[in-house]
Amino acid sequence: MTRLEEKFAKLGVDCAPGQEVRHHVDPDEKFRGTKLEGVPVDFSHGDVNAFPPIPGSLENFVDGFEEGADQAYTEYRGRHNIRDLLADRLSRFTGERIDAAHELILAPGTQGALFLAMGSSIAGGDKVAIVVPDYFANRKLVEFFEGEVVPIRMDYLGANEGSGLDLTQLEEAFRSGVKLFVFSNPNNPTGVIYSLADVTAIANLAQQYGATVIVDELYSRQIFDGRDYTHLRGLGLVNPANLITIIGPSKTESMSGFRLGVAIGSSEMVGRMEKLQAIVSLRAAGYCQAALRGWFAEPDGWMTTRIAQHRAIRDDILAVLKVAEGFSFRLTEGGSYFFPTMPPISLSISDFVRVLRVQAGVSVTPGTEFGSEFTRSFRINFSQNHGAAVAAMERLVMIVDRYRLSVDTHEKGCSV
Amino acid sequence: MTRLEEKFAKLGVDCAPGQEVRHHVDPDEKFRGTKLEGVPVDFSHGDVNAFPPIPGSLENFVDGFEEGADQAYTEYRGRHNIRDLLADRLSRFTGERIDAAHELILAPGTQGALFLAMGSSIAGGDKVAIVVPDYFANRKLVEFFEGEVVPIRMDYLGANEGSGLDLTQLEEAFRSGVKLFVFSNPNNPTGVIYSLADVTAIANLAQQYGATVIVDELYSRQIFDGRDYTHLRGLGLVNPANLITIIGPSKTESMSGFRLGVAIGSSEMVGRMEKLQAIVSLRAAGYCQAALRGWFAEPDGWMTTRIAQHRAIRDDILAVLKVAEGFSFRLTEGGSYFFPTMPPISLSISDFVRVLRVQAGVSVTPGTEFGSEFTRSFRINFSQNHGAAVAAMERLVMIVDRYRLSVDTHEKGCSV
Repeated sequence: MTRLEEKFAKLGVDCAPGQEVRHHVDPDEKFRGTKLEGVPVDFSHGDVNAFPPIPGSLENFVDGFEEGADQAYTEYRGRHNIRDLLADRLSRFTGERIDAAHELILAPGTQGALFLAMGSSIAGGDKVAIVVPDYFANRKLVEFFEGEVVPIRMDYLGANEGSGLDLTQLEEAFRSGVKLFVFSNPNNPTGVIYSLADVTAIANLAQQYGATVIVDELYSRQIFDGRDYTHLRGLGLVNPANLITIIGPSKTESMSGFRLGVAIGSSEMVGRMEKLQAIVSLRAAGYCQAALRGWFAEPDGWMTTRIAQHRAIRDDILAVLKVAEGFSFRLTEGGSYFFPTMPPISLSISDFVRVLRVQAGVSVTPGTEFGSEFTRSFRINFSQNHGAAVAAMERLVMIVDRYRLSVDTHEKGCSV
Repeated sequence: MTRLEEKFAKLGVDCAPGQEVRHHVDPDEKFRGTKLEGVPVDFSHGDVNAFPPIPGSLENFVDGFEEGADQAYTEYRGRHNIRDLLADRLSRFTGERIDAAHELILAPGTQGALFLAMGSSIAGGDKVAIVVPDYFANRKLVEFFEGEVVPIRMDYLGANEGSGLDLTQLEEAFRSGVKLFVFSNPNNPTGVIYSLADVTAIANLAQQYGATVIVDELYSRQIFDGRDYTHLRGLGLVNPANLITIIGPSKTESMSGFRLGVAIGSSEMVGRMEKLQAIVSLRAAGYCQAALRGWFAEPDGWMTTRIAQHRAIRDDILAVLKVAEGFSFRLTEGGSYFFPTMPPISLSISDFVRVLRVQAGVSVTPGTEFGSEFTRSFRINFSQNHGAAVAAMERLVMIVDRYRLSVDTHEKGCSV
């Protein structure tokens, strides 16, 4: 294998969310039981038909299109008057002032912002700490930029308070030379929120060791049950030159189809990110940038209602999982993800995902996308039609039941 | 300097097209002569107000938005039914069949496609041959991926027939271990078209040495004066596994504000590009992809008229340059660029660009963006309002006249 072949061999996409369309089915495959009827649900990402984009998004786009050249060809970091709007709104949201001219860049999606941030921070051979489990692209990005992944455990199931992040391990990582720590808050895939104590500890450690932190706050507007949420940048504990905050309107706000994200960082770091963007894609689509005018300026009550709707779906899915035998999970605290662990079944996780799709019309993301050890976990995004999502979870539990290993069988250690 | 600082120091953007908005002006700077009045013209890119996008583009976008989830979340390589349409149209355009499922990927702009193509072909330390002059991002991309740039001269001014590419130098490059050759046809910035003999020679050399070729055909629909245009892939001389063709609707079709581009390559190479896209930006904006439905399906006569309008502007700018003393240039054969060399003046190219903008309201891209030796050249994109563009070129010549060095002064070798 050439060096490039090796590099790309690590970058799988076939199990990634959104790629299910290419999974072929063997018509002769035998399954247990009959097909379970019901409305198909693709839990791999949110359903923008059930939760449409912020009202006025299309109109803002059309206005941008009609404005013409000034909106089509913006600075690579995004159009200045839109950055002005967002810097003001995001300063208030995150609790720390943002200089619109120098400290903010628009990118094609939060994925685009994360790519720019990591590409601007990682030199070949650098040690980079990432949380396990966390967003699956984090690992891939570190590997693509030829950094070395240093995993930090998060005991999200065991923790009573806070995330369960292993701070001792994080400090060891910094001590061993890790120069960058990347994490999502709320955590993707578990929906865990890092507590004030967690975020403060991360900030203090990063500052003590002079490390850079990239925090992905994509889901930070959708916080349930009146919980507190701590913006790392709002604490003022980390040298701003060493902190990048990422956020975007693709999730709760359902604007993924426009591919828009934002990175906030120091003038120097944003300068680097823009240089990178100039060779990656030039800019977030100019006309799409105009749709950001409605972000953080939603109609009164719109966001409150949306969060309440998502919370109601969460609670009904919780009820399904609670009565099902042998599932472990942490109740989602923020965002639209659940990351349950199943009881032992006679299927591998990839077979389970396939059987579930074929026999029950339900798509989920296998836990192994988030860490090789999550062989009995799956992620769902419950930003879906409420009734369909709950019914789909009921079908999921029925499929698990069909392949469930009895405790005896399991304890005898039969080959699974 | 750290390794990252060095890497980003090479990636300048301040002189790149579209970034002029950030060039500050010293109010006390002294200029020769008075300000030249006229409609400001930004020649650094096309003006979509003068040449709007393909009719129906906005309507296609709106239909995509209204279609909802299926258009918002496409496969990373782009929505299958749009790829089907484009594979069919691009097969006919390029003269060689394209398998829609495996050999075509949509990207955020042709820049996005070029990034994916180069990121999927270059391993650190690889030698990569690029043409001088050529699109300025080519060099930056090679350096970002830590390849080694091997420049290949193109004597575009001296050649009577064909591009003037130094094929001897290209063969030497391949012989010395170059594994990738990247070029744009028509050439950016000169507007030169590679002849059938040129393209055949490139194909044969690449095939002989087993090298990969990336050809950027962004401007290949806008060919003037009934000239022939040769699609490298249509010749069938290069192993398809070693050939990537890039094209997009951002230029002649004025759809840059949607950020859409296409790469055509082997199944394996497109697979790699998709893996890379999955961590770079996921996909071209879903709703924007819908605007591609109108590409290569423009209303009858629309493209012919557009080419004729651009040709008429080209001819009137040619007339201005012909009577101006001391300019050398090659007449644009395809695309919307002119790349003239000025007579000796007492300003550096960067000072000239600034003086021209401040004193005449005219923005051009300095030749040094395309190769460090082009210190007396500049690029214009003449896809502009016809009258404004011609008047702007007249002002440009007046500014040159103000700073012109007499032949005597020049021959005495005064410091410029």
